[in-house]
Amino acid sequence: MEDRIVTACLVIIGNEILSGRTKDANLPWIAARLNALGIELCEVRVVPDVTARIVEAVNEVRARYDHVFTTGGIGPTHDDITADAIARAFGVALLRDPRAVALLQAHYQPGQLNEARLRMANIPEGADLIDNPVSRAPGFRIGNVHVMAGVPAIMQAMFDAVAPTLKGGPVVHSRTVTCGLPEGVLAADLAAVEQRHAGVSIGSYPWFRMGATGVSLVLRGIDGAALDRAAADLAAVIRRLGGEPVMEQRASAR
Amino acid sequence: MEDRIVTACLVIIGNEILSGRTKDANLPWIAARLNALGIELCEVRVVPDVTARIVEAVNEVRARYDHVFTTGGIGPTHDDITADAIARAFGVALLRDPRAVALLQAHYQPGQLNEARLRMANIPEGADLIDNPVSRAPGFRIGNVHVMAGVPAIMQAMFDAVAPTLKGGPVVHSRTVTCGLPEGVLAADLAAVEQRHAGVSIGSYPWFRMGATGVSLVLRGIDGAALDRAAADLAAVIRRLGGEPVMEQRASAR
Repeated sequence: MEDRIVTACLVIIGNEILSGRTKDANLPWIAARLNALGIELCEVRVVPDVTARIVEAVNEVRARYDHVFTTGGIGPTHDDITADAIARAFGVALLRDPRAVALLQAHYQPGQLNEARLRMANIPEGADLIDNPVSRAPGFRIGNVHVMAGVPAIMQAMFDAVAPTLKGGPVVHSRTVTCGLPEGVLAADLAAVEQRHAGVSIGSYPWFRMGATGVSLVLRGIDGAALDRAAADLAAVIRRLGGEPVMEQRASAR
Repeated sequence: MEDRIVTACLVIIGNEILSGRTKDANLPWIAARLNALGIELCEVRVVPDVTARIVEAVNEVRARYDHVFTTGGIGPTHDDITADAIARAFGVALLRDPRAVALLQAHYQPGQLNEARLRMANIPEGADLIDNPVSRAPGFRIGNVHVMAGVPAIMQAMFDAVAPTLKGGPVVHSRTVTCGLPEGVLAADLAAVEQRHAGVSIGSYPWFRMGATGVSLVLRGIDGAALDRAAADLAAVIRRLGGEPVMEQRASAR
C-alpha cells in the first residue's frame, strides 16, 4: 500500500454500448472492486469499435492514470479489434502467442480450433496473459493496461485474476445519511459540514420515489473515525433543520 | 437533415457514477433518442466533480463532435459545479441570469428561494436556457454544448425540450438475428456477409443464459432494404452452418 492516491481509468470498447442496445454492467462492478483495493476510478471512456479511436483513448489515459482497464472486443469475430489496437497503441507487433494457442488447444475439441478462434491467441508482443477460467481465451496486460472481455462473467473472472497484482493506496470509505429535506434547504449547512471536517468530501444526490423526495448525502474519505464524526455532525444539522436523518449501512466500501 | 453523419458526445459528470454507487441510466436513453434523430453517439466520458477535469473534457469533445450533452452537477449544493466549469471552458462569465431567477421565483413559495437555490440561476453568459418542466431550475445550451440535469426524469424532459433544435443526419436502422451457434463457428462467414453488403456493419454479441449460449448479430446501416437483404443472407448462412436463425423485431431504431 502506498500513501498517495492510486488512480485508474476504464475504457469501455463497443458500438453496442454507444448505440444504447447493451447496458454496460461492468462500470459499477469494477468501480466497487477498485475502491476496495484502494484504487480510485477517476475517468471512464466509452469508445466505438474503431482502431484509431481505441489507440488514441488508450494512449491518452495510460499516460495519465496508474492503471487502465479495457473491456470488450477480444472475441473471434471481425469486430473484435482490441488486441490489434492495443498493439498499435504500444507500437509493438501483434503475435500469435504460443501460450494462448496452448490454452485454446486444451479447451476445444479436435477440429474445432479454427482460424477465427485462433485469432483470440493474437496478443501484443511482450504482454502477460490474464487467465480466463470461464471460456479460456485469455485477456492480457501490457504496461499498465489490462485488456479484459466485455461479457460480465468473463470480465469479472479476469479482474479477480489480476486483482492480486494491482498496487493500491489508502482505501476510501463512505457513510450515507438520507433524509427527506430538499437539497436547497440543506445546501448551505452541507457545505459548512464539509468545511468543518478535513479529508471528508460530501456528495448530495436528490431522489424522487413514489411522489416523495429527499436526498442521499454520501460522505467519503480514508479516515473512518473522521467520517463517523462528520456523519454525526450532519445528522445533528438535519435534525436542527427539521429533518429525520437515517444512517445507511452499506456492506461494501464505496 | 444532412447527408453526412452527425456526431455527438455525452459527458457524464459525477463522483457517484465513478464510485459505482449510482448506476447511470442516462446513456442508453440518450443513445436511443439521438439515434432516432439521426445523430450518432460516438463517445461517452465519465468525469469527476472536479472543475479542471470537466473543463478539459468539454473543451476536447466540443471541438470534435457536432453536439455535446452533459448530465449532472447543476443542483443547489456545493458539489454542483457544472455551470461554473462550462463558463470556464468557454471563457465567459458566470452570471445570475434574470430569466432563470424569474423561473425560480415563480416556482418557490415566498421565503423559500434562498441563496443556495439561487445558485441554480447562475448561467454562463450568452447561453440559452433549457426548459425544466419537472423542477423548474433550467439547463442551458452554449455553443454546441447542452447542459442537463443528472436525475433521469429531469434530464429526459430537458432532452425533449432540446430535441427539436438538434440537426440530425441519416438515421441508422438495425436488424438483429439471433442463433445458438458459437461465435467461433460463425466468424469467417460473418465477415464475408458484411463484405457482401456495402453500407451494412455487423456486430457480434455472445450471450450466456441459463446454461445455454448463443450470439446476437446486429446489422446496422441507413438503408433498410440493404439491411433486410443482409439479414436474409445471414439467416441462410446460419442455416447452412446448422443453426436456427431468429429475426428479432425491435420497436425502436438502434
